[in-house]
Amino acid sequence: VFSESVSDHVIRQVCLSSGDTPQAISTCLHPALIPVEVSLAYRFFTLMLPLLCFCHRYDLLSLYFLLQSCPATQPSMLNVHLVPHTHDDVGWLKTVDQYYYGDRNDIQHAGVQYILDSVLEQLLADPTRRFIYVETAFFFRWWRQQDSATRKAVTMLVNEGRLEFVNGGWCMSDEATTHYSAVIDQMTLGLRFLNDTFGACGRPRVAWHIDPFGHAREHASMFAQMGYDGFFFGRLDYQDKARRIRDKDMEMVWRASESLTPPTADLFTGVLPNGYNPPAGFCWDQSCNDPPIRDDPNLEDYNVDNVAKMYRTNHIIMTMGSDFQYENANLWYKNMDKLIRYVNAKQSQGSKVNVLYSTPSCYLQGLHQANLTWSVKMDDFFPYADGPHDFWTGYFTSRPALKRYERLSNSLLQVCNQLEVLGGPNSRKGPYGEGDSDTLQEAMSVAQHHDAVSGTEKQHVANDYAKRLARGWAHCEVLGSRPSTTPAGRLKELDLSFQRLNISVICLSIIWPVRLPVNGSDYMVLQPHGQVLDSQVSLIMAASSIMVSHCYAIKRSVRIFVSSLLKGTQEVGFQPGYNASDGNSADSNQPSGAYIFRPNSSTPIIVSQTAKTYTLKNSVVQEVQQEFSPWVSQVVRLYWGSRELELEWTVGPIPVEDSLGKEVITRLDTNINSSGYFYTDSNGREMLERRKDFRPTWDLKQSEPVAGNYYPINSRIYIKDKVNQLTAVTDRSQGASSLQDGSLEIMLHRRLLYDDVRGVGEPLSEPGDDNKGLVVRGRLLLALTPPKDAADIHRPLAEALVLEPLLAFQTGELHPNTILEFSGLQASLPPAVHLLTLSQWDQESVLLRLEHQFQVTESPTNSQPVTVNLKKLFSTLEVVGVSEMNLSANQWKDEMNRFDWKTSGGIVTFSTGNTNEKGIFGMCQSCLHKCEVF
Amino acid sequence: VFSESVSDHVIRQVCLSSGDTPQAISTCLHPALIPVEVSLAYRFFTLMLPLLCFCHRYDLLSLYFLLQSCPATQPSMLNVHLVPHTHDDVGWLKTVDQYYYGDRNDIQHAGVQYILDSVLEQLLADPTRRFIYVETAFFFRWWRQQDSATRKAVTMLVNEGRLEFVNGGWCMSDEATTHYSAVIDQMTLGLRFLNDTFGACGRPRVAWHIDPFGHAREHASMFAQMGYDGFFFGRLDYQDKARRIRDKDMEMVWRASESLTPPTADLFTGVLPNGYNPPAGFCWDQSCNDPPIRDDPNLEDYNVDNVAKMYRTNHIIMTMGSDFQYENANLWYKNMDKLIRYVNAKQSQGSKVNVLYSTPSCYLQGLHQANLTWSVKMDDFFPYADGPHDFWTGYFTSRPALKRYERLSNSLLQVCNQLEVLGGPNSRKGPYGEGDSDTLQEAMSVAQHHDAVSGTEKQHVANDYAKRLARGWAHCEVLGSRPSTTPAGRLKELDLSFQRLNISVICLSIIWPVRLPVNGSDYMVLQPHGQVLDSQVSLIMAASSIMVSHCYAIKRSVRIFVSSLLKGTQEVGFQPGYNASDGNSADSNQPSGAYIFRPNSSTPIIVSQTAKTYTLKNSVVQEVQQEFSPWVSQVVRLYWGSRELELEWTVGPIPVEDSLGKEVITRLDTNINSSGYFYTDSNGREMLERRKDFRPTWDLKQSEPVAGNYYPINSRIYIKDKVNQLTAVTDRSQGASSLQDGSLEIMLHRRLLYDDVRGVGEPLSEPGDDNKGLVVRGRLLLALTPPKDAADIHRPLAEALVLEPLLAFQTGELHPNTILEFSGLQASLPPAVHLLTLSQWDQESVLLRLEHQFQVTESPTNSQPVTVNLKKLFSTLEVVGVSEMNLSANQWKDEMNRFDWKTSGGIVTFSTGNTNEKGIFGMCQSCLHKCEVF
Repeated sequence: VFSESVSDHVIRQVCLSSGDTPQAISTCLHPALIPVEVSLAYRFFTLMLPLLCFCHRYDLLSLYFLLQSCPATQPSMLNVHLVPHTHDDVGWLKTVDQYYYGDRNDIQHAGVQYILDSVLEQLLADPTRRFIYVETAFFFRWWRQQDSATRKAVTMLVNEGRLEFVNGGWCMSDEATTHYSAVIDQMTLGLRFLNDTFGACGRPRVAWHIDPFGHAREHASMFAQMGYDGFFFGRLDYQDKARRIRDKDMEMVWRASESLTPPTADLFTGVLPNGYNPPAGFCWDQSCNDPPIRDDPNLEDYNVDNVAKMYRTNHIIMTMGSDFQYENANLWYKNMDKLIRYVNAKQSQGSKVNVLYSTPSCYLQGLHQANLTWSVKMDDFFPYADGPHDFWTGYFTSRPALKRYERLSNSLLQVCNQLEVLGGPNSRKGPYGEGDSDTLQEAMSVAQHHDAVSGTEKQHVANDYAKRLARGWAHCEVLGSRPSTTPAGRLKELDLSFQRLNISVICLSIIWPVRLPVNGSDYMVLQPHGQVLDSQVSLIMAASSIMVSHCYAIKRSVRIFVSSLLKGTQEVGFQPGYNASDGNSADSNQPSGAYIFRPNSSTPIIVSQTAKTYTLKNSVVQEVQQEFSPWVSQVVRLYWGSRELELEWTVGPIPVEDSLGKEVITRLDTNINSSGYFYTDSNGREMLERRKDFRPTWDLKQSEPVAGNYYPINSRIYIKDKVNQLTAVTDRSQGASSLQDGSLEIMLHRRLLYDDVRGVGEPLSEPGDDNKGLVVRGRLLLALTPPKDAADIHRPLAEALVLEPLLAFQTGELHPNTILEFSGLQASLPPAVHLLTLSQWDQESVLLRLEHQFQVTESPTNSQPVTVNLKKLFSTLEVVGVSEMNLSANQWKDEMNRFDWKTSGGIVTFSTGNTNEKGIFGMCQSCLHKCEVF
Repeated sequence: VFSESVSDHVIRQVCLSSGDTPQAISTCLHPALIPVEVSLAYRFFTLMLPLLCFCHRYDLLSLYFLLQSCPATQPSMLNVHLVPHTHDDVGWLKTVDQYYYGDRNDIQHAGVQYILDSVLEQLLADPTRRFIYVETAFFFRWWRQQDSATRKAVTMLVNEGRLEFVNGGWCMSDEATTHYSAVIDQMTLGLRFLNDTFGACGRPRVAWHIDPFGHAREHASMFAQMGYDGFFFGRLDYQDKARRIRDKDMEMVWRASESLTPPTADLFTGVLPNGYNPPAGFCWDQSCNDPPIRDDPNLEDYNVDNVAKMYRTNHIIMTMGSDFQYENANLWYKNMDKLIRYVNAKQSQGSKVNVLYSTPSCYLQGLHQANLTWSVKMDDFFPYADGPHDFWTGYFTSRPALKRYERLSNSLLQVCNQLEVLGGPNSRKGPYGEGDSDTLQEAMSVAQHHDAVSGTEKQHVANDYAKRLARGWAHCEVLGSRPSTTPAGRLKELDLSFQRLNISVICLSIIWPVRLPVNGSDYMVLQPHGQVLDSQVSLIMAASSIMVSHCYAIKRSVRIFVSSLLKGTQEVGFQPGYNASDGNSADSNQPSGAYIFRPNSSTPIIVSQTAKTYTLKNSVVQEVQQEFSPWVSQVVRLYWGSRELELEWTVGPIPVEDSLGKEVITRLDTNINSSGYFYTDSNGREMLERRKDFRPTWDLKQSEPVAGNYYPINSRIYIKDKVNQLTAVTDRSQGASSLQDGSLEIMLHRRLLYDDVRGVGEPLSEPGDDNKGLVVRGRLLLALTPPKDAADIHRPLAEALVLEPLLAFQTGELHPNTILEFSGLQASLPPAVHLLTLSQWDQESVLLRLEHQFQVTESPTNSQPVTVNLKKLFSTLEVVGVSEMNLSANQWKDEMNRFDWKTSGGIVTFSTGNTNEKGIFGMCQSCLHKCEVF
């Protein structure tokens, strides 16, 4: 019997065979059996279960090139690593396709197809030149259009290390407003393409988040578990950066998890010297105006000493590129060639500066060889400010409807993936056209971009992201409506009209009320076996109208797996708001905008001290509908049998006739003695302690008492004292804070009249369907518990809200053979375990991620190892073997061999410990293991 | 005895051996003897005189490729010739070097080095792609920096017709403000480089003046005599263009000389459909915002029928490019590839449109093969207007100081060239460094550009042109100061401090007063043999101060070859001016600017009705100094023995404190009954009849009564009746008109407060040395004669003023052996003959151009053939052989074989008549003639 123990807070990935005919598979299937018991240490597995093993042997020739590939450096000189790069937003001022093709250059000149064309030419022209590429969303589009000769040339460049992929996800994800579930998916999509296309030498060694506006600890943790050796970024708080420059602390080891044993979540992290731009005067892109280097002897070189004194080794890195640069790479390379030639020529006159084409990996190798002891970073890099009144905390909430749609789409994507697995390899073909999960997977991966779900894109681009998601929904609907060909042959004629409904959910493991809009009042809800379920028809209040809503199930085949209602009480809820600064103040002219939150006063305006209220109490629910103003209302609900209070808020259209932008918050005031502390999640997973007007690593000079205390929440925020903990679980990413003891505030919606001068060039004023301003509705679930019990409530609650069950509808009479109840699992999973991913990998394998979702000490019962028997997990899949992979499923777990770094806390080594140089190249090994099958 | 007859108005070019040791020479020396007597027909010769003949055999392989090189067209379809091109101004908003390197991209994004890099890559990538290149000033810079592999690749592209040079001069010269002498020089410089580098296949077949602001007939005449088969341009009067579109008369034969027998000066001329831009929506350069072609089937194609109906054959030309485009040629070619592929794919569905990569030569070949009869154009294309109130007649005068400096530099260049010839091949090396004429030749060639001497560049670029000329002067000065190593060994220690003096001249063939600034009043002027020359010291009035000036020669070795003074009388002279429109008028918001002249009233403002006057009368001169205002003054001079009245005007700083720009004219009012007619030169050579409010080829709707009647003058303007002719000869290019009978007006200076929105982006307000506004001084020479005698006066007068003798100075005592008098000619040339060019071609040959400067009927005596005996022409050079070349010296005269065109006046053929297709490829013949030497 094969069984698997899933420990605290561990996400597991398992490639499972779906039992079909064996065929050659494109990845190297490693046969190592996973251990039956796994330690509590926070790490990732990938388990591969082939029926037959087809090893793809990595070319030893490419290994040779890669080992040789880093350019020689001069040990006795200052080595200046020029890193030619382009930063290609997967949508921002233009849509992703407009960026790819170079369409709408009137908005911004940018065409990624030409960048890749041009860089290829230039790399082929001179073997010393190098380039890095980041965003697989673009590279994938381009690769599809290349002929075989071009593909061969690119492959050669990759094998020789001249073209290096860094980061390599589908996009460079936002770190504040993304959920780890979607980030893992988008990284997996991009890295899989690179692995399928280039093998081991295409695997990125370095994570590269040069633009995101602040950095989440969970991202660093994920990168570590994905096998990255280092991480570089450009943006951090200006005070933090000044301190790090002063203390020569620009590079460090980030210990990114409290739960995982170091160095599992340790990630070497470097702050780049010039953001991601070239040094002043050395930008030679067509989009720059710096003077070219003329062929004359009077070259004035950059004073590299200014940079060198910020860093600790005799290596410095220079990012030679910027947004959408290298469309005409000749300009860059021609001038860098001259720079290298002329500066290095001065070595014969005693200069100690050595300039070279390099890559982040080669720079990282130089740092590693320096064998220094590095400081350890334990907290995160939020919030980001680039000036005393310039806190980038507005985007935590910008475009709340898009943020919700993204979250809901993630939920659908998981359903869609699961349907493909349950349906088997042929599940994509149906009578209503071909469906697939790929379209939604790509749309979701695009939506993780740091100008997508972040809400910092132009309006037409936001519309495009939503359109892509909607197209993904359509493809999933087709998939859902196929006549089933599942192995068990039981799921038939399932019409998943997901989009027709924007309310409520179904969940296997938690009580979940279902609310549906209906006409009339005479409905009966039946359970699968025909029992009548208690339901009520009631009035609900919309923003500007009254709509009829019901808790219901109609006779005609609505599938409700579980629906029972619990009871509780709680008193909370009203919506104050901030007026946004218009930039006219004595301190600064910074207005609030898509990125930046800057209220014109630290005291919020109360929308209304009183509300029109309507109360409802029946056998299912008791609720108070509160109308604070024509554009702010709320329903406070408590279902019988439930311990959580639901706040359903409706905000909008936010009035701006008074020429003041507004940022609407909901504030929850309690008697909890929180002492300035509060706790927010990191990408929806681990919780981080926050403290008002405080940063753990430097002496904060607080200049924005509200915006400077805002943090992103993806799933929850809480305050606590010894007796009580108030936890608010949310349905989308938002900005939140605790500005007074006992108080929590969450920003719900924003409408602004000024651009905040960070490039987007539009005020954030979403038009809504009628151009009168967007109306947004959402939910907060509140739990008031003793601190020790809190996680046992909020972990499953947040899981249910994030991966929300979806309702499916079917009209007409059911086929008599229709099975009304089905589960892909043999039994419910334990409360600590979350089935994060179940998706068809290829014809012969399935990707499974299991997650232990309790942090190390948060629950006396649930923060313990749990054992899952994989053989007995699924009701329709036979698990015949398993191999463990890294988190992003592009490397065998036992071949992960990351750099070790000495830290101020002492050296820690990987359990697979290998401290030599091969770490960074460890992936380039041939796969010669003999396969074993259970 | 070898002798040569130079006929009326014929410029002759002779390559002469300087008598040094024979060496291999770079061009193919053709031995054909020129005929002893030449007909009156207006045509050009080049005479080559080698000591030994070294034939450079043109590769027959390249002939083969060129014959095959035009792409196939479809006789039954509309052939759309896509002509990929870039228009690279040799200075405009940036200097020529800034444009070459891509410096100061903050002003304008443009870097020619990258354009050529990029186009080369793209041409090599696909053999169907083509490109044309125009400006040799840039191509030369780029070629110097290429390695041998690149040069070889480029040569292959040229030989295969994939890279075609068009125009090929150093620049694309201005047509309104250039003098034919300098235009011939700059074309010769550029075409020689192409010939030396690529041989016959590098010879441009098509002249290409897509941007100049109006077109001079003399330019067409020169192009015809340089061997071009056709000429294309983009700008013509909007009314003219509308008429030509309506009448399908966009292409014609331009009969560009009254004096030359057709078809010697006939040039097939085409108006391009879109200026020089691509059709709307089809611009795919990085500088454009048109959408790229996506790879989808829904391609919307351009409605080519709209263009086709303007033209007569089944060929149309599309200029695919614009200013400084193709820096990233991949964008262009990638999308044009798709355009061609998708549009031509529709032929299988019945489409009759065939799109192809082409060149102007191949398009011209298509037109020639159509064998149609074309209309004949006899006048020119001045003035150019792009709207009713938008006459581009201001630039005729813009930057008068630069225009004068350019003209004076031309004079120096001829002196410099002649000194090199007289000094022989070693003349460039001297004790004060190495001198050369190349620097000034290049600076002068750059200055002919249509945003250089035209005055339509930014101020800093105008400064750069002047700086380049000054550098050229310095190189010539070194040349002049060498210890002479002339063949005769007689010119020694000549210190040519040309730049220290900005006044007056010396001339062999005409009386020329000399004025020099001195201190004191006690000077004696000696002739070469010691005789005292009559001279006077007098006061002259400067703009804002009184300076002492003298007609003088000091004892110390000033060489004055001739100086005697004649007598006469004339009454003329005052300076009115126009206030410039600021754009605020009911008709149009067009203001005056660097390009455009638009006075705010048709009536000029009189600066002053009265003037302070000072009179002077002595044995040399009588003069009246007139001060009309502190910023307008004039000296009216009449030298004893001279028939011409000299008006020395001083204008500036033009006051603008009243917020009105001003355009200062001088107006000469007489009783001549001119009946609306007046006459202006074309590039300083043939005279054209002008008529107020009239155009010869269309029914003019005059909308600007002043600006719409302005024409460029380069050397002279006259009015006449049966009794009198008043001719004004000028010292630089200017705008001029006759707005009332008997009146002539010439614009002298302009200072404006608004940009005229044609791209230069600066108001034309020259700062002058003190930033208070530029002061300009100049001269007009007036002759009042019977019409039949006028040319006998103004032809030599204009020659003297254009190719002004230069004064040279030497301090200290003269070496006893110094020869005080020297002439390179054995005797003076006949009055009709002008030695236009005498320059060292290479170590073994000298280029000579002789010009007959009298138009066909203008002088009873001088408009007759004249015989010059070349053997007896020079005092220090032995002429041992001679071959005739085309005007630009890049083709043997007897190998010129241009296309014949049928015209509405009947077919005319060349005397070397050959009507078959080989015309356009005639140059690609091997040179196998046996050399013959006298």
